Amino acid sequence: MNILLIGAQGTLGRAVAEELGPRHTLITAGRNSGDLRIDLTDRDSIAAALARAGQLDAVISAAGNVAFGGLLELTPEQWEIGLRDKLMGQVNLALLAAPLLADGGSITLTTGVLAEDPIRYGASATLVNAGIEGFVRAAALELPRGVRINAVSPGVLQESMPGYAPYFRGFEAVPAARAALGFSRSVEGAQTGQVYRIA
Amino acid sequence: MNILLIGAQGTLGRAVAEELGPRHTLITAGRNSGDLRIDLTDRDSIAAALARAGQLDAVISAAGNVAFGGLLELTPEQWEIGLRDKLMGQVNLALLAAPLLADGGSITLTTGVLAEDPIRYGASATLVNAGIEGFVRAAALELPRGVRINAVSPGVLQESMPGYAPYFRGFEAVPAARAALGFSRSVEGAQTGQVYRIA
Repeated sequence: MNILLIGAQGTLGRAVAEELGPRHTLITAGRNSGDLRIDLTDRDSIAAALARAGQLDAVISAAGNVAFGGLLELTPEQWEIGLRDKLMGQVNLALLAAPLLADGGSITLTTGVLAEDPIRYGASATLVNAGIEGFVRAAALELPRGVRINAVSPGVLQESMPGYAPYFRGFEAVPAARAALGFSRSVEGAQTGQVYRIA
Repeated sequence: MNILLIGAQGTLGRAVAEELGPRHTLITAGRNSGDLRIDLTDRDSIAAALARAGQLDAVISAAGNVAFGGLLELTPEQWEIGLRDKLMGQVNLALLAAPLLADGGSITLTTGVLAEDPIRYGASATLVNAGIEGFVRAAALELPRGVRINAVSPGVLQESMPGYAPYFRGFEAVPAARAALGFSRSVEGAQTGQVYRIA
């Protein structure tokens, strides 16, 4: 398959590339690196990257920024980061990719454990992740030509624990390589409208 | 209790007023009617209404617009309606009300059955409702002074079925008076971080 992998240079994206690279042709994309440049907050940038990627069987997003901060301290601009980037960035990627994918192709987005298990300072992440999961459930009903959509919800990544541990006490961290299996299930499986929770 | 009820003239809001009015002092608010004018898409309008409402024990939103349409036909402007109005309108209401509410006061937002049970043309509603439910789960962890937050998720209302029936075939409609009980549980109960599903 020809697979566009967005966020390919991130911790999760690199693990996804290791999992899927041996079996498929990956076109990597990122804000500052990869075969293609893409800014998820900019619909034109998404459309341009999709046009340059050529015929695709799958699109994967392992990207998306959200601001963390105290519930009543987050500024309107910080709430907007999650809405524009991880939430609508991934939604717009799905909407723009859907008509371009091969019949039976797939879209895989990234959400995260905070959707279900909130933490202090994580209200924007929980809102955004829950919204993505809702979008995936609904979009699966309407995608044309057998195009599928799923999300992967990894727990906090082992590789990210050095920076995040104080916020995730008691959470069992997940190796990025295990989280990558969720992307394999989505791309290489047959289900749609699923959230693969990698705990 | 002194309760600010937003969307008081809507089908749901009127039922909430009937349920809570006999036991509490309601200050009604709406875009075009009620004791106070409020536009949920405008933070300044929310702040002004809260300032004019006086000391409050509870804030209820029975309001929020979302656009319906085919997944790939919804325009960016239509996606924005749900994000600005029902999602961030209610989030901003909660964030702005929290510091003003009496100790142990409550915030109650409205989501809906589409959060979990998507329908054709409802992708924006599912995204928005799921996001609200995520916000409520997370915000409950951080609200100060015992202030609580919950959401009520009614099924499609019996009173709305004349217009919505073709989109909700097989859904068992719920009388608005029954949905109003969820608001009573939230305001007059002691729980926080809950979604009361009224099916």
